[in-house]
Amino acid sequence: MLRLVTLVVAAALSGGATAANAAIQTKTVTYEQGGVTLEGFLAWDDALTGPLPGVLVVHQWMGLTENEMMRARMLAELGYVALAADVYGQGVRPADTAGAAKEAGKYYGDRGLLRARVAAGLDTLKKQPGVDAARTAAIGYCFGGGAVLELARSGADLQGVVSFHGSLDTPLPAGKGDVKASVLVCHGAIDPYVKPEAVTGFMAEMEAAGVDYQFIAYAGAVHAFTQTGAGSDPARGAAYQETADRRSWAAMKAFLAEVLR
Amino acid sequence: MLRLVTLVVAAALSGGATAANAAIQTKTVTYEQGGVTLEGFLAWDDALTGPLPGVLVVHQWMGLTENEMMRARMLAELGYVALAADVYGQGVRPADTAGAAKEAGKYYGDRGLLRARVAAGLDTLKKQPGVDAARTAAIGYCFGGGAVLELARSGADLQGVVSFHGSLDTPLPAGKGDVKASVLVCHGAIDPYVKPEAVTGFMAEMEAAGVDYQFIAYAGAVHAFTQTGAGSDPARGAAYQETADRRSWAAMKAFLAEVLR
Repeated sequence: MLRLVTLVVAAALSGGATAANAAIQTKTVTYEQGGVTLEGFLAWDDALTGPLPGVLVVHQWMGLTENEMMRARMLAELGYVALAADVYGQGVRPADTAGAAKEAGKYYGDRGLLRARVAAGLDTLKKQPGVDAARTAAIGYCFGGGAVLELARSGADLQGVVSFHGSLDTPLPAGKGDVKASVLVCHGAIDPYVKPEAVTGFMAEMEAAGVDYQFIAYAGAVHAFTQTGAGSDPARGAAYQETADRRSWAAMKAFLAEVLR
Repeated sequence: MLRLVTLVVAAALSGGATAANAAIQTKTVTYEQGGVTLEGFLAWDDALTGPLPGVLVVHQWMGLTENEMMRARMLAELGYVALAADVYGQGVRPADTAGAAKEAGKYYGDRGLLRARVAAGLDTLKKQPGVDAARTAAIGYCFGGGAVLELARSGADLQGVVSFHGSLDTPLPAGKGDVKASVLVCHGAIDPYVKPEAVTGFMAEMEAAGVDYQFIAYAGAVHAFTQTGAGSDPARGAAYQETADRRSWAAMKAFLAEVLR
């Protein structure tokens, strides 16, 4: 996993970014779960009058970084109020992949805590001025992709979740009728960290639970295909791929437009 | 397979159809392959000035029916010149599924002939007035989905192919660099006729051949999910599903806009 060290640290602008819009406003938002202070990042278009649909953005294993702030701004450009959530806690931003693996592992090992942390972000988003609490969705990357799927499995009240190269397995599979959200999974076809067995298991879980899901696999894409800091060598198991990044963002746009209309 | 008997005979308007446009023109087009006369159906928007990109539509196992003519008209509404191709030959329109299975079987058993028949349709499309021969794609349903994948594997000169619930396996897998077209596969997640092993094999073939493909699976969708005549009971293995039909058509639109831009 050391080869993932540059994954997010070297975050940069990504495919699909739009021209800077002076009306996009951002601010830090602190909130709380289980006595822990969390520090998220809110973005919205000040030129739009609400109520607007809201989108939660859940970070990868390095914690909330410039990558998720960029996605929040991009979502604001699309007319959403976007909150880049913080699962780990204020100031908890792993400095390297060893720290990230340890921190992420805490939540992989305690799905109840993970669900509660993500739900706190969703609740915070719904309470923001100008947000239509009846129209929300959540997207997530890597760790955050798995996290938004957990949010959906928990039966959270939101219209959609989108996982980008997220983990798909869970120790707490959804039961019939549990999931209210529609689900979109954007997957690297040759992701060595999210294997075909996990895909098969996920689809069987979703079918058994009666979930409205879509699964998209992108050619030649490995783990972290939306992360510009992941380098460009698929042989390393994690790599940025402009085509899959662009297409998955477009698929997300169409999905959000459908479920948040 | 007798349960598929109403599949296309009872063809009707499908999700995604747009309002009638008086500028949409249609006509029968006859062409030839291997000494056999083929009878296709051309649709275009007379209000548009060319050259326009062209899209071939390949029929399911019952042969060219009103279903494919409807799709050709819908493509014309989108600004494409669309040719609903004829693989079987003028007047060869099976009356029932037994006849369809026999006729389709001829081409499944002779992929060279299948490729030649579909290629003849593509050539005919490229020669139509107002078509930009450098910007073409092909879409197909069930049998036709498998057929357009064969076209792509043959190295045909076109920009994209889209399979809707098509068969994915082939006795003539693509070699490295063979496929010029981008590929979109729209698949019913629980299609009992196109099984998970076929999906896995197809993706391995595409990866090995270096193809630019995307694979989308739709929740709860079985075979023939775009075919309104297929009924609505997934337990029968083939059934119309409005959600998957609408979403797959939207995915196709985005794909064609990208590859034919």
